[in-house]
Amino acid sequence: MARRCFQVKESAADIRPDVRRAFGMENGMITSLSNSRVKNVTALNRKAKERRSQEKYVVEGVRMFLEAPEEEIEEIYVSAGFEESCRREAHGKPYSCACLERLDRLPFETVSDEVFSRMSDTQTPQGILCVMRRKNWTQEEIMAGNAPLIMVLEDIQDPGNLGTILRTGEGAGISGVLMSRGCADIYNPKTIRSTMGSIYRVPFFYTDSMEETAARLKDAGVSLCAAHLQGSVVYTEPDYTKGTAFLIGNEGNGLRPETAALAGCRIRIPMAGQVESLNAAMASGILMYEAARQRKGEL
Amino acid sequence: MARRCFQVKESAADIRPDVRRAFGMENGMITSLSNSRVKNVTALNRKAKERRSQEKYVVEGVRMFLEAPEEEIEEIYVSAGFEESCRREAHGKPYSCACLERLDRLPFETVSDEVFSRMSDTQTPQGILCVMRRKNWTQEEIMAGNAPLIMVLEDIQDPGNLGTILRTGEGAGISGVLMSRGCADIYNPKTIRSTMGSIYRVPFFYTDSMEETAARLKDAGVSLCAAHLQGSVVYTEPDYTKGTAFLIGNEGNGLRPETAALAGCRIRIPMAGQVESLNAAMASGILMYEAARQRKGEL
Repeated sequence: MARRCFQVKESAADIRPDVRRAFGMENGMITSLSNSRVKNVTALNRKAKERRSQEKYVVEGVRMFLEAPEEEIEEIYVSAGFEESCRREAHGKPYSCACLERLDRLPFETVSDEVFSRMSDTQTPQGILCVMRRKNWTQEEIMAGNAPLIMVLEDIQDPGNLGTILRTGEGAGISGVLMSRGCADIYNPKTIRSTMGSIYRVPFFYTDSMEETAARLKDAGVSLCAAHLQGSVVYTEPDYTKGTAFLIGNEGNGLRPETAALAGCRIRIPMAGQVESLNAAMASGILMYEAARQRKGEL
Repeated sequence: MARRCFQVKESAADIRPDVRRAFGMENGMITSLSNSRVKNVTALNRKAKERRSQEKYVVEGVRMFLEAPEEEIEEIYVSAGFEESCRREAHGKPYSCACLERLDRLPFETVSDEVFSRMSDTQTPQGILCVMRRKNWTQEEIMAGNAPLIMVLEDIQDPGNLGTILRTGEGAGISGVLMSRGCADIYNPKTIRSTMGSIYRVPFFYTDSMEETAARLKDAGVSLCAAHLQGSVVYTEPDYTKGTAFLIGNEGNGLRPETAALAGCRIRIPMAGQVESLNAAMASGILMYEAARQRKGEL
Protein backbone atom coordinates (compact mmCIF):
# COMPACT_ATOMS: atom_id res chain seq x y z
CA MET A 1 0.00 0.00 0.00
CA ALA A 2 1.25 3.47 -0.85
CA ARG A 3 1.45 5.15 2.53
CA ARG A 4 1.14 8.87 2.69
CA CYS A 5 1.29 11.28 5.59
CA PHE A 6 -0.27 14.71 5.80
CA GLN A 7 3.08 16.12 4.78
CA VAL A 8 3.50 13.83 1.81
CA LYS A 9 -0.04 14.33 0.63
CA GLU A 10 0.40 18.05 0.14
CA SER A 11 2.58 17.13 -2.85
CA ALA A 12 0.09 14.67 -4.29
CA ALA A 13 -0.36 17.08 -7.17
CA ASP A 14 3.14 16.05 -8.27
CA ILE A 15 1.87 12.57 -9.22
CA ARG A 16 1.41 12.37 -12.99
CA PRO A 17 -2.25 12.87 -13.95
CA ASP A 18 -2.36 9.59 -15.92
CA VAL A 19 -1.03 7.67 -12.91
CA ARG A 20 -3.57 9.35 -10.65
CA ARG A 21 -6.38 8.45 -13.00
CA ALA A 22 -5.15 4.88 -13.27
CA PHE A 23 -5.39 4.53 -9.48
CA GLY A 24 -8.78 6.24 -9.27
CA MET A 25 -7.16 9.17 -7.44
CA GLU A 26 -8.13 12.75 -8.13
CA ASN A 27 -6.63 15.67 -6.23
CA GLY A 28 -4.71 13.21 -4.06
CA MET A 29 -7.75 11.25 -3.01
CA ILE A 30 -9.40 8.01 -4.07
CA THR A 31 -12.56 8.85 -5.98
CA SER A 32 -13.21 5.59 -7.78
CA LEU A 33 -15.62 3.04 -6.38
CA SER A 34 -13.78 0.35 -8.31
CA ASN A 35 -10.43 1.09 -6.67
CA SER A 36 -9.10 -2.28 -5.51
CA ARG A 37 -8.44 -1.16 -1.94
CA VAL A 38 -11.94 0.27 -1.63
CA LYS A 39 -13.31 -3.03 -2.84
CA ASN A 40 -11.16 -4.91 -0.37
CA VAL A 41 -12.45 -2.91 2.64
CA THR A 42 -16.02 -3.60 1.53
CA ALA A 43 -15.20 -7.31 1.23
CA LEU A 44 -13.61 -7.33 4.70
CA ASN A 45 -16.72 -5.70 6.14
CA ARG A 46 -19.10 -8.09 4.45
CA LYS A 47 -17.39 -11.48 4.43
CA ALA A 48 -16.13 -13.45 7.42
CA LYS A 49 -14.21 -15.64 4.96
CA GLU A 50 -12.19 -12.66 3.68
CA ARG A 51 -11.45 -11.54 7.23
CA ARG A 52 -10.23 -15.03 8.05
CA SER A 53 -8.07 -15.58 4.98
CA GLN A 54 -6.48 -12.11 5.13
CA GLU A 55 -6.25 -12.16 8.96
CA LYS A 56 -7.65 -8.62 8.98
CA TYR A 57 -10.77 -6.79 10.08
CA VAL A 58 -12.27 -3.31 9.83
CA VAL A 59 -13.07 -0.86 12.63
CA GLU A 60 -15.04 2.33 12.12
CA GLY A 61 -15.54 5.64 13.80
CA VAL A 62 -13.53 8.14 15.80
CA ARG A 63 -13.60 6.22 19.03
CA MET A 64 -12.46 2.93 17.49
CA PHE A 65 -9.69 4.80 15.65
CA LEU A 66 -8.43 6.56 18.75
CA GLU A 67 -8.42 3.40 20.89
CA ALA A 68 -6.82 1.20 18.20
CA PRO A 69 -3.37 -0.10 19.24
CA GLU A 70 -0.98 1.52 16.76
CA GLU A 71 1.02 -1.62 16.08
CA GLU A 72 -2.14 -3.43 14.90
CA ILE A 73 -3.27 -0.75 12.42
CA GLU A 74 -2.66 -1.76 8.79
CA GLU A 75 -4.45 0.95 6.83
CA ILE A 76 -6.35 4.13 7.67
CA TYR A 77 -9.00 5.73 5.46
CA VAL A 78 -10.62 9.11 6.05
CA SER A 79 -13.32 10.79 4.00
CA ALA A 80 -12.59 14.19 2.50
CA GLY A 81 -15.42 15.66 4.55
CA PHE A 82 -14.07 14.21 7.78
CA GLU A 83 -10.54 15.41 7.09
CA GLU A 84 -11.79 18.91 6.41
CA SER A 85 -14.00 19.14 9.50
CA CYS A 86 -11.19 17.66 11.59
CA ARG A 87 -8.79 20.40 10.52
CA ARG A 88 -11.44 23.08 10.97
CA GLU A 89 -12.45 21.94 14.47
CA ALA A 90 -9.05 20.83 15.72
CA HIS A 91 -8.72 23.76 18.05
CA GLY A 92 -12.18 23.48 19.55
CA LYS A 93 -13.15 19.82 19.77
CA PRO A 94 -10.93 17.46 21.74
CA TYR A 95 -11.91 14.47 19.56
CA SER A 96 -10.92 16.24 16.34
CA CYS A 97 -7.72 17.35 17.93
CA ALA A 98 -6.83 13.83 19.06
CA CYS A 99 -7.65 12.49 15.59
CA LEU A 100 -5.47 15.06 13.88
CA GLU A 101 -2.61 14.34 16.23
CA ARG A 102 -2.81 10.63 15.33
CA LEU A 103 -3.27 11.30 11.63
CA ASP A 104 -0.19 13.53 11.64
CA ARG A 105 1.90 10.60 12.81
CA LEU A 106 0.31 7.69 10.92
CA PRO A 107 0.07 7.12 7.17
CA PHE A 108 -3.50 7.38 5.88
CA GLU A 109 -5.49 7.62 2.68
CA THR A 110 -8.17 10.20 1.85
CA VAL A 111 -11.22 9.04 -0.10
CA SER A 112 -14.17 10.99 -1.44
CA ASP A 113 -17.29 11.02 0.74
CA GLU A 114 -19.11 8.88 -1.83
CA VAL A 115 -16.35 6.27 -1.80
CA PHE A 116 -16.29 6.30 2.00
CA SER A 117 -20.03 5.60 2.12
CA ARG A 118 -19.43 2.52 0.00
CA MET A 119 -16.62 1.29 2.25
CA SER A 120 -18.57 1.94 5.44
CA ASP A 121 -20.84 -0.57 7.16
CA THR A 122 -22.98 2.15 8.77
CA GLN A 123 -25.89 4.26 7.55
CA THR A 124 -24.32 7.53 8.68
CA PRO A 125 -20.55 7.01 8.50
CA GLN A 126 -18.36 9.11 10.75
CA GLY A 127 -15.72 9.30 8.02
CA ILE A 128 -12.83 7.33 9.45
CA LEU A 129 -12.04 3.61 9.40
CA CYS A 130 -9.03 1.34 9.87
CA VAL A 131 -8.05 -2.05 8.56
CA MET A 132 -6.61 -3.90 11.55
CA ARG A 133 -4.41 -6.96 11.91
CA ARG A 134 -6.05 -9.76 13.88
CA LYS A 135 -4.58 -10.70 17.19
CA ASN A 136 -4.35 -14.33 18.27
CA TRP A 137 -4.58 -15.49 21.84
CA THR A 138 -4.20 -19.04 23.07
CA GLN A 139 -6.55 -20.75 25.48
CA GLU A 140 -3.63 -20.95 27.93
CA GLU A 141 -3.20 -17.17 27.96
CA ILE A 142 -6.88 -16.77 28.82
CA MET A 143 -6.69 -19.38 31.59
CA ALA A 144 -3.50 -17.95 33.08
CA GLY A 145 -3.44 -16.09 36.39
CA ASN A 146 -4.55 -16.90 39.86
CA ALA A 147 -8.34 -16.94 39.73
CA PRO A 148 -9.41 -16.44 36.12
CA LEU A 149 -12.98 -15.44 35.34
CA ILE A 150 -13.91 -16.81 31.92
CA MET A 151 -16.98 -16.76 29.68
CA VAL A 152 -17.51 -19.90 27.59
CA LEU A 153 -20.03 -19.21 24.83
CA GLU A 154 -21.76 -21.84 22.77
CA ASP A 155 -23.29 -20.85 19.42
CA ILE A 156 -24.13 -17.26 20.36
CA GLN A 157 -25.64 -16.08 17.08
CA ASP A 158 -26.35 -12.40 17.52
CA PRO A 159 -23.32 -10.19 16.80
CA GLY A 160 -24.70 -7.51 19.13
CA ASN A 161 -24.96 -9.98 22.01
CA LEU A 162 -21.39 -11.13 21.45
CA GLY A 163 -20.10 -7.55 21.44
CA THR A 164 -22.09 -6.63 24.54
CA ILE A 165 -20.66 -9.64 26.39
CA LEU A 166 -17.13 -8.46 25.54
CA ARG A 167 -17.86 -4.88 26.63
CA THR A 168 -19.58 -5.84 29.87
CA GLY A 169 -16.96 -8.52 30.46
CA GLU A 170 -14.13 -6.02 30.30
CA GLY A 171 -16.05 -3.91 32.82
CA ALA A 172 -16.56 -6.88 35.14
CA GLY A 173 -12.88 -7.74 34.88
CA ILE A 174 -13.06 -11.08 33.08
CA SER A 175 -9.89 -12.83 31.87
CA GLY A 176 -11.28 -13.67 28.46
CA VAL A 177 -13.90 -15.36 26.31
CA LEU A 178 -13.83 -18.88 24.86
CA MET A 179 -16.24 -19.48 21.99
CA SER A 180 -17.53 -22.49 20.07
CA ARG A 181 -17.05 -22.34 16.29
CA GLY A 182 -20.81 -21.93 16.01
CA CYS A 183 -20.66 -18.46 17.56
CA ALA A 184 -20.99 -15.37 15.36
CA ASP A 185 -17.74 -13.96 13.96
CA ILE A 186 -16.32 -11.65 16.57
CA TYR A 187 -14.88 -9.49 13.77
CA ASN A 188 -18.35 -8.85 12.32
CA PRO A 189 -18.78 -5.05 12.06
CA LYS A 190 -21.89 -5.18 14.27
CA THR A 191 -20.02 -7.08 16.98
CA ILE A 192 -17.12 -4.66 16.83
CA ARG A 193 -19.44 -1.65 17.15
CA SER A 194 -21.14 -3.07 20.21
CA THR A 195 -17.83 -3.86 21.93
CA MET A 196 -17.15 -0.10 22.12
CA GLY A 197 -13.40 -0.83 21.94
CA SER A 198 -13.26 -3.92 24.16
CA ILE A 199 -12.41 -5.96 21.03
CA TYR A 200 -8.87 -4.56 21.35
CA ARG A 201 -8.48 -5.57 24.98
CA VAL A 202 -10.48 -8.65 25.97
CA PRO A 203 -8.66 -11.87 24.98
CA PHE A 204 -10.76 -14.44 23.12
CA PHE A 205 -10.32 -17.82 21.48
CA TYR A 206 -12.45 -20.00 19.18
CA THR A 207 -12.37 -23.63 20.22
CA ASP A 208 -13.07 -26.61 17.98
CA SER A 209 -14.13 -28.77 20.88
CA MET A 210 -16.13 -27.69 23.90
CA GLU A 211 -15.28 -31.03 25.52
CA GLU A 212 -11.54 -30.41 25.24
CA THR A 213 -11.91 -26.81 26.42
CA ALA A 214 -13.91 -27.94 29.46
CA ALA A 215 -11.31 -30.60 30.27
CA ARG A 216 -8.48 -28.06 30.11
CA LEU A 217 -10.37 -25.64 32.33
CA LYS A 218 -10.97 -28.36 34.89
CA ASP A 219 -7.30 -29.40 34.77
CA ALA A 220 -6.40 -25.78 35.54
CA GLY A 221 -8.66 -25.87 38.60
CA VAL A 222 -11.37 -23.65 37.07
CA SER A 223 -14.96 -24.40 38.19
CA LEU A 224 -17.49 -24.70 35.37
CA CYS A 225 -20.95 -23.21 35.99
CA ALA A 226 -23.58 -23.70 33.29
CA ALA A 227 -26.32 -21.08 33.03
CA HIS A 228 -29.42 -23.21 32.71
CA LEU A 229 -33.16 -22.55 32.86
CA GLN A 230 -33.57 -25.73 34.91
CA GLY A 231 -30.51 -25.07 37.07
CA SER A 232 -30.81 -26.42 40.57
CA VAL A 233 -28.73 -23.66 42.20
CA VAL A 234 -29.62 -19.95 42.26
CA TYR A 235 -26.72 -18.03 40.65
CA THR A 236 -25.95 -16.04 43.81
CA GLU A 237 -25.16 -19.14 45.88
CA PRO A 238 -21.88 -20.57 44.51
CA ASP A 239 -18.50 -19.04 45.39
CA TYR A 240 -16.99 -17.35 42.33
CA THR A 241 -13.87 -15.97 44.01
CA LYS A 242 -11.78 -18.92 42.80
CA GLY A 243 -11.19 -19.66 39.11
CA THR A 244 -14.63 -19.66 37.46
CA ALA A 245 -16.00 -20.23 33.97
CA PHE A 246 -19.62 -19.46 33.07
CA LEU A 247 -21.11 -21.51 30.22
CA ILE A 248 -23.71 -19.63 28.17
CA GLY A 249 -25.74 -21.25 25.40
CA ASN A 250 -27.40 -20.21 22.17
CA GLU A 251 -30.10 -17.51 22.28
CA GLY A 252 -32.94 -19.79 21.22
CA ASN A 253 -31.89 -23.21 22.44
CA GLY A 254 -29.59 -22.67 25.41
CA LEU A 255 -26.65 -25.01 25.98
CA ARG A 256 -26.57 -28.38 24.24
CA PRO A 257 -27.27 -31.08 26.86
CA GLU A 258 -23.81 -32.60 26.31
CA THR A 259 -22.19 -29.20 26.94
CA ALA A 260 -24.27 -28.50 30.05
CA ALA A 261 -23.22 -31.93 31.32
CA LEU A 262 -19.57 -30.81 31.29
CA ALA A 263 -20.23 -28.27 34.07
CA GLY A 264 -19.90 -29.02 37.76
CA CYS A 265 -23.03 -27.05 38.58
CA ARG A 266 -26.06 -25.68 36.80
CA ILE A 267 -27.03 -22.23 37.93
CA ARG A 268 -30.33 -20.47 37.39
CA ILE A 269 -31.20 -16.78 37.36
CA PRO A 270 -34.61 -16.58 39.08
CA MET A 271 -37.30 -14.94 36.98
CA ALA A 272 -40.56 -13.42 38.20
CA GLY A 273 -43.70 -13.02 36.10
CA GLN A 274 -44.04 -14.96 32.88
CA VAL A 275 -40.50 -14.37 31.62
CA GLU A 276 -39.20 -17.56 30.02
CA SER A 277 -35.58 -16.49 29.67
CA LEU A 278 -33.33 -13.47 29.71
CA ASN A 279 -31.38 -12.16 26.75
CA ALA A 280 -28.06 -14.07 26.51
CA ALA A 281 -25.93 -10.93 26.92
CA MET A 282 -28.04 -9.80 29.86
CA ALA A 283 -27.74 -13.17 31.61
CA SER A 284 -23.97 -13.06 31.00
CA GLY A 285 -23.73 -9.55 32.44
CA ILE A 286 -25.69 -10.45 35.57
CA LEU A 287 -23.45 -13.48 36.18
CA MET A 288 -20.18 -11.63 35.50
CA TYR A 289 -21.16 -8.79 37.82
CA GLU A 290 -22.22 -11.21 40.54
CA ALA A 291 -18.71 -12.71 40.32
CA ALA A 292 -17.24 -9.18 40.39
CA ARG A 293 -19.39 -8.35 43.43
CA GLN A 294 -18.06 -11.39 45.27
CA ARG A 295 -14.50 -10.50 44.26
CA LYS A 296 -15.02 -6.84 45.13
CA GLY A 297 -12.02 -4.70 45.70
CA GLU A 298 -10.41 -6.22 42.61
CA LEU A 299 -12.06 -3.90 40.07
CA MET B 1 -64.33 -4.30 10.95
CA ALA B 2 -66.00 -7.31 9.36
CA ARG B 3 -65.13 -10.10 11.77
CA ARG B 4 -64.93 -13.62 10.45
CA CYS B 5 -64.27 -16.89 12.20
CA PHE B 6 -62.95 -20.06 10.66
CA GLN B 7 -66.50 -21.29 10.38
CA VAL B 8 -67.80 -18.16 8.71
CA LYS B 9 -64.89 -17.93 6.33
CA GLU B 10 -65.68 -21.25 4.67
CA SER B 11 -68.66 -19.55 3.14
CA ALA B 12 -66.68 -16.55 1.89
CA ALA B 13 -67.31 -17.81 -1.62
CA ASP B 14 -70.92 -16.74 -1.12
CA ILE B 15 -69.91 -13.08 -1.18
CA ARG B 16 -70.71 -11.56 -4.57
CA PRO B 17 -67.57 -11.42 -6.77
CA ASP B 18 -67.99 -7.67 -7.40
CA VAL B 19 -68.16 -7.00 -3.64
CA ARG B 20 -65.09 -9.14 -3.06
CA ARG B 21 -63.17 -7.27 -5.75
CA ALA B 22 -64.31 -3.94 -4.33
CA PHE B 23 -62.81 -4.87 -0.96
CA GLY B 24 -59.61 -6.31 -2.47
CA MET B 25 -60.69 -9.77 -1.33
CA GLU B 26 -60.16 -12.85 -3.50
CA ASN B 27 -61.15 -16.32 -2.32
CA GLY B 28 -62.06 -14.88 1.06
CA MET B 29 -58.73 -13.21 1.68
CA ILE B 30 -57.34 -9.70 1.34
CA THR B 31 -55.08 -9.61 -1.68
CA SER B 32 -54.87 -5.89 -2.34
CA LEU B 33 -51.98 -3.82 -1.03
CA SER B 34 -54.20 -0.77 -1.15
CA ASN B 35 -56.85 -2.25 1.17
CA SER B 36 -57.48 0.40 3.81
CA ARG B 37 -56.95 -1.93 6.77
CA VAL B 38 -53.67 -3.16 5.33
CA LYS B 39 -52.57 0.43 4.98
CA ASN B 40 -53.63 1.20 8.53
CA VAL B 41 -51.54 -1.64 10.00
CA THR B 42 -48.52 -0.37 8.07
CA ALA B 43 -49.14 3.14 9.39
CA LEU B 44 -49.46 1.85 12.96
CA ASN B 45 -46.16 0.01 12.58
CA ARG B 46 -44.33 2.99 11.14
CA LYS B 47 -45.74 6.04 12.90
CA ALA B 48 -45.78 6.77 16.63
CA LYS B 49 -48.27 9.55 15.90
CA GLU B 50 -50.78 7.09 14.43
CA ARG B 51 -50.34 4.75 17.37
CA ARG B 52 -51.00 7.64 19.74
CA SER B 53 -54.02 9.09 17.99
CA GLN B 54 -55.68 5.69 17.44
CA GLU B 55 -54.59 4.37 20.87
CA LYS B 56 -53.51 1.15 19.19
CA TYR B 57 -50.34 -0.76 18.42
CA VAL B 58 -49.25 -3.82 16.46
CA VAL B 59 -47.68 -7.03 17.77
CA GLU B 60 -46.21 -9.70 15.53
CA GLY B 61 -45.37 -13.37 15.66
CA VAL B 62 -46.74 -16.52 17.21
CA ARG B 63 -45.46 -15.86 20.69
CA MET B 64 -46.84 -12.33 20.89
CA PHE B 65 -50.19 -13.60 19.56
CA LEU B 66 -50.42 -16.43 22.08
CA GLU B 67 -49.51 -14.21 25.05
CA ALA B 68 -51.78 -11.31 24.04
CA PRO B 69 -54.57 -10.70 26.57
CA GLU B 70 -57.77 -11.50 24.66
CA GLU B 71 -59.66 -8.45 25.85
CA GLU B 72 -57.00 -6.14 24.37
CA ILE B 73 -56.95 -7.69 20.88
CA GLU B 74 -58.71 -5.51 18.29
CA GLU B 75 -57.85 -7.24 15.01
CA ILE B 76 -55.97 -10.39 13.98
CA TYR B 77 -54.35 -10.94 10.58
CA VAL B 78 -52.84 -14.19 9.37
CA SER B 79 -51.11 -14.86 6.07
CA ALA B 80 -52.52 -17.57 3.81
CA GLY B 81 -49.25 -19.47 4.13
CA PHE B 82 -49.33 -19.35 7.92
CA GLU B 83 -52.93 -20.46 8.09
CA GLU B 84 -52.21 -23.39 5.82
CA SER B 85 -49.12 -24.56 7.69
CA CYS B 86 -50.92 -24.10 10.99
CA ARG B 87 -53.72 -26.46 9.93
CA ARG B 88 -51.23 -28.92 8.47
CA GLU B 89 -49.02 -29.04 11.58
CA ALA B 90 -51.71 -28.66 14.20
CA HIS B 91 -51.42 -32.25 15.32
CA GLY B 92 -47.64 -32.28 15.59
CA LYS B 93 -46.44 -28.88 16.73
CA PRO B 94 -47.73 -27.49 20.02
CA TYR B 95 -47.36 -23.87 18.83
CA SER B 96 -49.47 -24.46 15.72
CA CYS B 97 -52.02 -26.28 17.81
CA ALA B 98 -52.24 -23.44 20.34
CA CYS B 99 -52.58 -20.90 17.50
CA LEU B 100 -55.35 -22.85 15.86
CA GLU B 101 -57.18 -23.20 19.13
CA ARG B 102 -57.10 -19.40 19.59
CA LEU B 103 -57.98 -18.69 15.96
CA ASP B 104 -60.98 -20.97 16.25
CA ARG B 105 -62.36 -18.79 19.00
CA LEU B 106 -61.36 -15.32 17.82
CA PRO B 107 -62.34 -13.45 14.66
CA PHE B 108 -59.47 -13.00 12.23
CA GLU B 109 -58.69 -11.96 8.69
CA THR B 110 -56.64 -13.91 6.15
CA VAL B 111 -54.38 -11.91 3.82
CA SER B 112 -52.17 -13.07 0.96
CA ASP B 113 -48.51 -13.68 1.80
CA GLU B 114 -47.54 -10.65 -0.29
CA VAL B 115 -49.95 -8.40 1.58
CA PHE B 116 -48.73 -9.76 4.90
CA SER B 117 -45.13 -8.92 3.97
CA ARG B 118 -46.21 -5.35 3.41
CA MET B 119 -48.01 -5.16 6.77
CA SER B 120 -45.13 -6.75 8.65
CA ASP B 121 -42.27 -4.87 10.26
CA THR B 122 -39.89 -7.83 9.98
CA GLN B 123 -37.70 -9.19 7.20
CA THR B 124 -38.99 -12.73 7.54
CA PRO B 125 -42.56 -12.46 8.88
CA GLN B 126 -44.00 -15.35 10.84
CA GLY B 127 -47.39 -14.74 9.28
CA ILE B 128 -49.51 -13.58 12.21
CA LEU B 129 -50.03 -10.14 13.72
CA CYS B 130 -52.55 -8.38 15.96
CA VAL B 131 -53.70 -4.81 16.35
CA MET B 132 -53.90 -4.23 20.09
CA ARG B 133 -55.66 -1.65 22.23
CA ARG B 134 -53.26 0.38 24.37
CA LYS B 135 -53.46 0.01 28.10
CA ASN B 136 -53.09 2.98 30.40
CA TRP B 137 -51.58 2.82 33.85
CA THR B 138 -51.29 5.67 36.32
CA GLN B 139 -48.17 6.58 38.22
CA GLU B 140 -50.06 5.69 41.41
CA GLU B 141 -50.69 2.14 40.26
CA ILE B 142 -46.97 1.69 39.61
CA MET B 143 -46.03 3.12 43.00
CA ALA B 144 -48.61 1.06 44.89
CA GLY B 145 -47.68 -1.82 47.12
CA ASN B 146 -45.40 -2.27 50.06
CA ALA B 147 -41.88 -1.92 48.68
CA PRO B 148 -42.14 -1.04 44.99
CA LEU B 149 -39.11 -1.46 42.74
CA ILE B 150 -39.32 1.08 39.94
CA MET B 151 -37.20 2.03 36.92
CA VAL B 152 -37.21 5.74 36.03
CA LEU B 153 -35.85 6.22 32.52
CA GLU B 154 -34.74 9.54 31.08
CA ASP B 155 -34.51 9.90 27.29
CA ILE B 156 -33.64 6.26 26.54
CA GLN B 157 -33.41 6.43 22.74
CA ASP B 158 -32.82 2.89 21.59
CA PRO B 159 -36.05 0.88 21.21
CA GLY B 160 -34.14 -2.36 21.83
CA ASN B 161 -32.77 -1.06 25.12
CA LEU B 162 -36.24 -0.03 26.26
CA GLY B 163 -37.67 -3.44 25.40
CA THR B 164 -34.81 -5.27 27.11
CA ILE B 165 -35.33 -3.21 30.28
CA LEU B 166 -39.00 -4.23 30.32
CA ARG B 167 -38.18 -7.91 29.74
CA THR B 168 -35.39 -8.05 32.33
CA GLY B 169 -37.47 -5.93 34.69
CA GLU B 170 -40.35 -8.39 34.62
CA GLY B 171 -37.82 -11.13 35.41
CA ALA B 172 -36.36 -9.14 38.31
CA GLY B 173 -39.85 -8.49 39.65
CA ILE B 174 -40.10 -4.72 39.21
CA SER B 175 -43.35 -2.86 39.86
CA GLY B 176 -43.16 -0.79 36.69
CA VAL B 177 -41.32 1.72 34.53
CA LEU B 178 -41.68 5.50 34.55
CA MET B 179 -40.34 7.25 31.45
CA SER B 180 -39.60 10.81 30.39
CA ARG B 181 -41.34 11.99 27.21
CA GLY B 182 -37.92 11.94 25.54
CA CYS B 183 -37.77 8.15 25.72
CA ALA B 184 -38.40 6.06 22.59
CA ASP B 185 -42.01 5.05 21.97
CA ILE B 186 -42.61 1.87 23.92
CA TYR B 187 -45.04 0.75 21.20
CA ASN B 188 -42.33 0.90 18.53
CA PRO B 189 -42.26 -2.54 16.81
CA LYS B 190 -38.58 -3.01 17.73
CA THR B 191 -39.30 -2.32 21.40
CA ILE B 192 -42.22 -4.70 21.39
CA ARG B 193 -40.13 -7.48 19.83
CA SER B 194 -37.39 -7.12 22.41
CA THR B 195 -39.87 -7.20 25.32
CA MET B 196 -40.69 -10.84 24.38
CA GLY B 197 -44.20 -10.32 25.75
CA SER B 198 -43.39 -8.23 28.83
CA ILE B 199 -45.13 -5.27 27.11
CA TYR B 200 -48.42 -6.93 28.11
CA ARG B 201 -47.48 -7.29 31.75
CA VAL B 202 -45.07 -4.62 33.03
CA PRO B 203 -46.92 -1.39 33.92
CA PHE B 204 -45.42 1.80 32.50
CA PHE B 205 -46.18 5.51 32.42
CA TYR B 206 -44.82 8.47 30.46
CA THR B 207 -44.31 11.48 32.68
CA ASP B 208 -44.21 15.10 31.55
CA SER B 209 -42.09 16.16 34.49
CA MET B 210 -39.26 14.22 36.04
CA GLU B 211 -39.30 16.71 38.92
CA GLU B 212 -42.93 15.98 39.73
CA THR B 213 -42.42 12.24 39.37
CA ALA B 214 -39.44 12.33 41.73
CA ALA B 215 -41.43 14.35 44.26
CA ARG B 216 -44.31 11.87 44.17
CA LEU B 217 -41.94 8.94 44.62
CA LYS B 218 -40.33 10.61 47.62
CA ASP B 219 -43.75 11.38 49.10
CA ALA B 220 -44.55 7.69 48.82
CA GLY B 221 -41.39 6.84 50.74
CA VAL B 222 -39.50 5.47 47.72
CA SER B 223 -35.71 6.00 47.73
CA LEU B 224 -34.28 7.45 44.52
CA CYS B 225 -30.92 6.07 43.34
CA ALA B 226 -29.34 7.65 40.28
CA ALA B 227 -27.02 5.47 38.18
CA HIS B 228 -24.09 7.78 37.61
CA LEU B 229 -20.56 7.34 36.23
CA GLN B 230 -19.29 9.61 38.99
CA GLY B 231 -21.46 8.04 41.69
CA SER B 232 -19.88 8.07 45.12
CA VAL B 233 -21.46 4.80 46.25
CA VAL B 234 -20.85 1.37 44.70
CA TYR B 235 -24.23 -0.04 43.62
CA THR B 236 -24.01 -3.07 45.91
CA GLU B 237 -23.86 -0.97 49.08
CA PRO B 238 -27.31 0.63 49.51
CA ASP B 239 -30.27 -1.32 50.87
CA TYR B 240 -32.85 -1.91 48.13
CA THR B 241 -35.28 -4.00 50.18
CA LYS B 242 -37.47 -0.95 50.88
CA GLY B 243 -39.25 1.02 48.13
CA THR B 244 -36.58 1.83 45.53
CA ALA B 245 -36.44 3.69 42.22
CA PHE B 246 -33.40 3.52 39.91
CA LEU B 247 -32.85 6.54 37.66
CA ILE B 248 -31.22 5.67 34.32
CA GLY B 249 -30.15 8.29 31.80
CA ASN B 250 -29.76 8.59 28.06
CA GLU B 251 -27.35 6.20 26.28
CA GLY B 252 -24.90 8.88 25.21
CA ASN B 253 -25.26 11.56 27.84
CA GLY B 254 -26.45 9.88 31.00
CA LEU B 255 -28.85 11.66 33.33
CA ARG B 256 -29.31 15.43 33.03
CA PRO B 257 -27.61 17.04 36.05
CA GLU B 258 -30.92 18.43 37.28
CA THR B 259 -32.45 14.95 37.18
CA ALA B 260 -29.51 13.31 38.93
CA ALA B 261 -29.83 16.00 41.62
CA LEU B 262 -33.33 14.73 42.43
CA ALA B 263 -31.93 11.44 43.74
CA GLY B 264 -30.93 10.80 47.31
CA CYS B 265 -27.84 8.87 46.25
CA ARG B 266 -25.70 8.41 43.19
CA ILE B 267 -24.62 4.86 42.61
CA ARG B 268 -21.82 3.63 40.40
CA ILE B 269 -21.24 0.25 38.76
CA PRO B 270 -17.48 -0.33 39.04
CA MET B 271 -15.76 -0.94 35.70
CA ALA B 272 -12.39 -2.57 35.14
CA GLY B 273 -10.19 -1.99 32.09
CA GLN B 274 -10.84 0.98 29.83
CA VAL B 275 -14.62 0.64 29.73
CA GLU B 276 -16.18 4.09 29.92
CA SER B 277 -19.76 2.98 30.47
CA LEU B 278 -22.07 0.01 30.21
CA ASN B 279 -24.98 -0.27 27.83
CA ALA B 280 -28.06 1.35 29.43
CA ALA B 281 -30.12 -1.85 29.40
CA MET B 282 -27.21 -3.81 30.84
CA ALA B 283 -26.68 -1.31 33.65
CA SER B 284 -30.43 -1.44 34.37
CA GLY B 285 -30.38 -5.23 34.45
CA ILE B 286 -27.43 -5.38 36.84
CA LEU B 287 -29.13 -2.92 39.21
CA MET B 288 -32.54 -4.61 39.08
CA TYR B 289 -31.02 -8.02 39.75
CA GLU B 290 -28.94 -6.64 42.63
CA ALA B 291 -32.21 -5.41 44.15
CA ALA B 292 -33.77 -8.81 43.46
CA ARG B 293 -30.79 -10.54 45.10
CA GLN B 294 -31.23 -8.43 48.23
CA ARG B 295 -34.96 -9.15 48.22
CA LYS B 296 -34.44 -12.83 47.51
CA GLY B 297 -37.20 -15.22 48.25
CA GLU B 298 -39.63 -12.81 46.64
CA LEU B 299 -39.08 -13.94 43.05
